[in-house]
Amino acid sequence: MRNGLTFDLLHTDGRARLGRVTTRHGAADTPVFMPVGTAASVKALSSQDVRELGAQIILGNTYHLYLRPGHEAIASFGGLHHFMNWPLSILTDSGGYQVFSLSALRRIREEGVEFRSHLDGSRHFLTPELAVDIQQALDSDIMMALDECPPHDAPREYVEKSMALTTRWARRCLARRLEGKGALFPIVQGGLHVDLRIRHIEELAGSDWPGMAIGGLSVGEPREQMMEMVDCAAVRLPADRPRYLMGVGTPRNLVDCVAMGVDMFDCVMPTRNARNGSLFTSAGKLSIKRAEHRLSDLPVDERCSCFTCRNASRGYLHHLFRANELAYFRFATIHNLAYYLGLMSSIRGAIRENRFAEFHREFISGPMGE
Amino acid sequence: MRNGLTFDLLHTDGRARLGRVTTRHGAADTPVFMPVGTAASVKALSSQDVRELGAQIILGNTYHLYLRPGHEAIASFGGLHHFMNWPLSILTDSGGYQVFSLSALRRIREEGVEFRSHLDGSRHFLTPELAVDIQQALDSDIMMALDECPPHDAPREYVEKSMALTTRWARRCLARRLEGKGALFPIVQGGLHVDLRIRHIEELAGSDWPGMAIGGLSVGEPREQMMEMVDCAAVRLPADRPRYLMGVGTPRNLVDCVAMGVDMFDCVMPTRNARNGSLFTSAGKLSIKRAEHRLSDLPVDERCSCFTCRNASRGYLHHLFRANELAYFRFATIHNLAYYLGLMSSIRGAIRENRFAEFHREFISGPMGE
Repeated sequence: MRNGLTFDLLHTDGRARLGRVTTRHGAADTPVFMPVGTAASVKALSSQDVRELGAQIILGNTYHLYLRPGHEAIASFGGLHHFMNWPLSILTDSGGYQVFSLSALRRIREEGVEFRSHLDGSRHFLTPELAVDIQQALDSDIMMALDECPPHDAPREYVEKSMALTTRWARRCLARRLEGKGALFPIVQGGLHVDLRIRHIEELAGSDWPGMAIGGLSVGEPREQMMEMVDCAAVRLPADRPRYLMGVGTPRNLVDCVAMGVDMFDCVMPTRNARNGSLFTSAGKLSIKRAEHRLSDLPVDERCSCFTCRNASRGYLHHLFRANELAYFRFATIHNLAYYLGLMSSIRGAIRENRFAEFHREFISGPMGE
Repeated sequence: MRNGLTFDLLHTDGRARLGRVTTRHGAADTPVFMPVGTAASVKALSSQDVRELGAQIILGNTYHLYLRPGHEAIASFGGLHHFMNWPLSILTDSGGYQVFSLSALRRIREEGVEFRSHLDGSRHFLTPELAVDIQQALDSDIMMALDECPPHDAPREYVEKSMALTTRWARRCLARRLEGKGALFPIVQGGLHVDLRIRHIEELAGSDWPGMAIGGLSVGEPREQMMEMVDCAAVRLPADRPRYLMGVGTPRNLVDCVAMGVDMFDCVMPTRNARNGSLFTSAGKLSIKRAEHRLSDLPVDERCSCFTCRNASRGYLHHLFRANELAYFRFATIHNLAYYLGLMSSIRGAIRENRFAEFHREFISGPMGE
């Protein structure tokens, strides 16, 4: 285990990679999708549900857990794994993204970022050192270095300065990491500028990171520009370490980015869309609130064998959604995560059998290829 | 099976009765508590959860299901059992109670009751015949005859007239029941007047009901008056048929009413209290939102072996409640229903072993004896 993590690159098919990430809490087969468990809960599910879905690693949000219940509270339970009864791997973000997207009155200084909580307006000062301390208190298996996330339309000069700050913060995070604790990944920024993305990777390359993340994407920019950034960045990241694309994405984006050599993904899309009534199926997206489902005795996806598809009809889910019944949220979230985790399993199968290019082509021309 | 139901009275211990109610969808051991599945869902749970808890019969609300999704929609799925994937027995109320407690602009006539939906203000006219038609469309195993539920402080003259109307409506319901469909119970009214309760039982006695319900209680009257009514009514109901006390109650009330010879109960208390943060335990009620639980690694009830107590600490549940996480509602509901179903199991064990009086005394002097 190098700095908290082992990565086994098992096979490649084009630029797509089949691998395995092993942390102190077990292995995850890559390419992997990590369900988002924001506040110590994958929304609407128990940790047992998430295990039964076959997830091998989940994501927790440092910002949310720091504010509520507090990292020291979670540490008193023996860490996030014990607190939420999730025995497998946990990756935590740095808190940076939420500070820049959720909180108020941000003031960025060399030392760190001052912000007000979106919950109660209380003042906090997040430094790279505190970001690591929090994640270590949570006992995260894969920690993220604090980064600044400029808006996607920030001027080039701003992105350049911000990127340099993110590099200095990453080195301070690394200096703070304790031996024996989780692995630490830096986050590649650089906005929508190919040369800055490349330069940032070169700047970060000096340290012995066990893996690296691509950040600052999927924040409102056009899809083509996002893909251009992933394309230029993924191929330049060290081949013997996992590459994590943060906050991505749609099923189509997952398949496209695997083709570019990305290994790890997280996104709220399957869980959030579930709660909003949008379900992913092998035949395309399905809006469960539509009247056409009212009398339908079909499962959400006739090719899916998840708990929801075995036990609830579209008509029943339509009714639960319309009646705002709590049971709806669990049924829908289970199905959407089953879709995402099943997609990743299909992707891994295709890479293993050297038919990923064909899989990719078929996916793009299929109902979820939008 | 007599008119859709078999009741086996297996043993008595004082006035407490051990029995078994068998419907077209299976048996339920009595005294039994029926979780409330208002809108085709025991709130926050899947039907699988409810089965795993060991429930043998649940209650559905005719009023809610009639308005949304509509009884004809449910009939098109093959009935409520198929719609919500619950294979065991279902009891449905008549809709009367909700018409009188939830809807607006009620106008009661001999023919039935006109009301406006609490959902969209639409006008409806519920007759005894329609109440039976709806319940038969749902394929209910135990149907309730339409009754009028006067407020607990209604004048005696009003209660007397209302009771006579409820008797006429019960006979019209019986005439509407189809052979081979669910059993039909009439509802004993009579307000808080012992003589009226007794008279109503005598009025209803002329027909061959497979079981009888006591209604119009637990609607705001003092506990002592409720108990006096149950006391005078339960003992006068036919001994060879199940006696169902509607909408009751607290754990203490369940134990007290079993002592008076009641066999069946339903109440939203375990499920509603769960959602509000109030949990039932062998050591008394526990308010999960209290700060004292923030760092507690104990289960909700150290003597409980339910899914929740095996998998979540008080501290974790406290956090989920505070963070308004959806997972909280399922955890809490499972625990509270486990408490209620476990209590009924203990009650049955005590009756079987002729120690119910002792059980009753101990329960009253214990932490849930309030």
